[in-house]
Amino acid sequence: MEVDEVVCLPRLSRVAVCGGTHGNELSGVYLVRELLKARKEAMEKKKEEEEEEEPASVLMVLSNPRATQHCRRYVDADLNRCFTHATLNGPVSDMAPYEMVRARELNTLLGPKGSGEAVDLVCDLHNTTANMGLCLIAYSDCDWICLHIFRHLQRQMPDVPMRFIHFDVSRKESYSLDSVGKHGFAMEIGPQPHGVVRSNIYTAMKDGVQHMLDWIHSFNSGTTFEGGFVDVFTMVKHIDYPRDGQTHDITAAIHPELQDRDFCLLHPEDALFQTFSGETLRYKGIEPLFPFFVNECAYYEKGIALSLARKRHVMIPAVRVQTEAEQQTDEQGFASEEE
Amino acid sequence: MEVDEVVCLPRLSRVAVCGGTHGNELSGVYLVRELLKARKEAMEKKKEEEEEEEPASVLMVLSNPRATQHCRRYVDADLNRCFTHATLNGPVSDMAPYEMVRARELNTLLGPKGSGEAVDLVCDLHNTTANMGLCLIAYSDCDWICLHIFRHLQRQMPDVPMRFIHFDVSRKESYSLDSVGKHGFAMEIGPQPHGVVRSNIYTAMKDGVQHMLDWIHSFNSGTTFEGGFVDVFTMVKHIDYPRDGQTHDITAAIHPELQDRDFCLLHPEDALFQTFSGETLRYKGIEPLFPFFVNECAYYEKGIALSLARKRHVMIPAVRVQTEAEQQTDEQGFASEEE
Repeated sequence: MEVDEVVCLPRLSRVAVCGGTHGNELSGVYLVRELLKARKEAMEKKKEEEEEEEPASVLMVLSNPRATQHCRRYVDADLNRCFTHATLNGPVSDMAPYEMVRARELNTLLGPKGSGEAVDLVCDLHNTTANMGLCLIAYSDCDWICLHIFRHLQRQMPDVPMRFIHFDVSRKESYSLDSVGKHGFAMEIGPQPHGVVRSNIYTAMKDGVQHMLDWIHSFNSGTTFEGGFVDVFTMVKHIDYPRDGQTHDITAAIHPELQDRDFCLLHPEDALFQTFSGETLRYKGIEPLFPFFVNECAYYEKGIALSLARKRHVMIPAVRVQTEAEQQTDEQGFASEEE
Repeated sequence: MEVDEVVCLPRLSRVAVCGGTHGNELSGVYLVRELLKARKEAMEKKKEEEEEEEPASVLMVLSNPRATQHCRRYVDADLNRCFTHATLNGPVSDMAPYEMVRARELNTLLGPKGSGEAVDLVCDLHNTTANMGLCLIAYSDCDWICLHIFRHLQRQMPDVPMRFIHFDVSRKESYSLDSVGKHGFAMEIGPQPHGVVRSNIYTAMKDGVQHMLDWIHSFNSGTTFEGGFVDVFTMVKHIDYPRDGQTHDITAAIHPELQDRDFCLLHPEDALFQTFSGETLRYKGIEPLFPFFVNECAYYEKGIALSLARKRHVMIPAVRVQTEAEQQTDEQGFASEEE
């Protein structure tokens, strides 16, 4: 690969790892608590030794402490839908849902979203009841930092099924906590029931976060990462459960042939649902697509039984961190753009 | 088998099938709704045809509609701990938890517990996040009706792992809804995340309930069921998670070697927990025992990481329904005992 093909990107100086954005998704809750505890112990130890320079400042955040305390997804409203431009910047009353207030606090801490002061990367930890393995979920299919981190995790954790999911939503409309950083993604791991912590899922998340931090350290230290290809699953549409016209109750469950088969291609006429009286309902789309978030607990109330994605092979360029001189030129450019 | 070895038991005239005692255990919720719908349709059809005699009256009950509406285990208190003699008969104020009031309503509908007016059998439908297959859970290891139904289900559903669990608690201290009937058990099926319905688990529950009703029909019709042996798992003790002394937060998860291994014998020094920092904690008991309810979501708050049982081989006698003459003699005996 020639040198002029290497894309030079700003240093990732400030990184946030967030857990408990949904208070009953426990891997992130216990991982962030563990990382905070380990850091505290390390700092106490370090006082007695020499000071070391941190390669990047890593902020650990428990996003929704009130929901976590009750082991519920949220108290008043889904926090991870509160980070749109409109919600963060609209009027807020004394009667505002707890999560709307908390979203503004987090935006102050980690953002403001869209500004130069925002942290460089937000990694928001989630669990799903769907059999999705480890997924990075992002709003961009050309954020080279996110895609390089993804490829690094894939290589370092070959035993964990891993996918990159792309929600094609504009920055302004993007609604989740990870959208507050300059770069960001959700790290979503399953299957795990909400309110439960499974050792294998916890360990996968712990390893994923560690490999991400290792990559960032290596990137900041000047390593050049070669280009290549990654598969990106772009969300196309959601499918709701069949429901009773009057009560709106669901009348069918995910079909046993589809259950746990996230990312296995769904073809027209494949079994989709099994009604509670035993009838099979089939997929009536005309295009084969990849199902994911199949039977995710939290999406019953959102009217999503599964989502469908198209898979693409995306080329990512080689990347390295900008030199100080490059960064200064870049900042001057940024400043003059602002004027 | 000789005739004089057959135990003659009263007819099971009134049976209750209850779902949604825990509002987020969805198989029972959707099954009871489906059975109610099917019955309504059958009755509308029957009006046009001849009247048939019902072999037994089956009452379908949605036990905790308010918790079901919110898809939560309970609103104020765990309904399935509200059926002790003390709670059902103690004073109740205007400020009483919803579930305490609802428990009294259910006791009026299906009981009163311990009286001659109580329904003959309560089958209460539950789900667990633990890998327990289908379990019948009862307070007696010598209730021949429950044990015969269990053996019938085992024979009819050979592909479903099935166990009979015995909680050695007195009738007065028994706390769950199924204790209101003259006979009763919980039908507990997993693994299924709470708030989710999985087709395979729903179908196992539907089949289990149907085979139970078939057995009751057959019993009431005069069939003699031969005696034999069944395995009974008697609960010995619960084990809590390791917890932080100050915060009371858990500091470990079920060890990956134990996760999903319900009813696989746990030996002294076997791996029990993995701490969040990666350390393995081992089982320090001196007796090998059978783990169950391993990592059940709802038991984190009850301080139960798993339960342990001893297995016994229990002989059950042949049974048949009492003739009308036998029943009258029995009732006279009951009446004279009361005097």
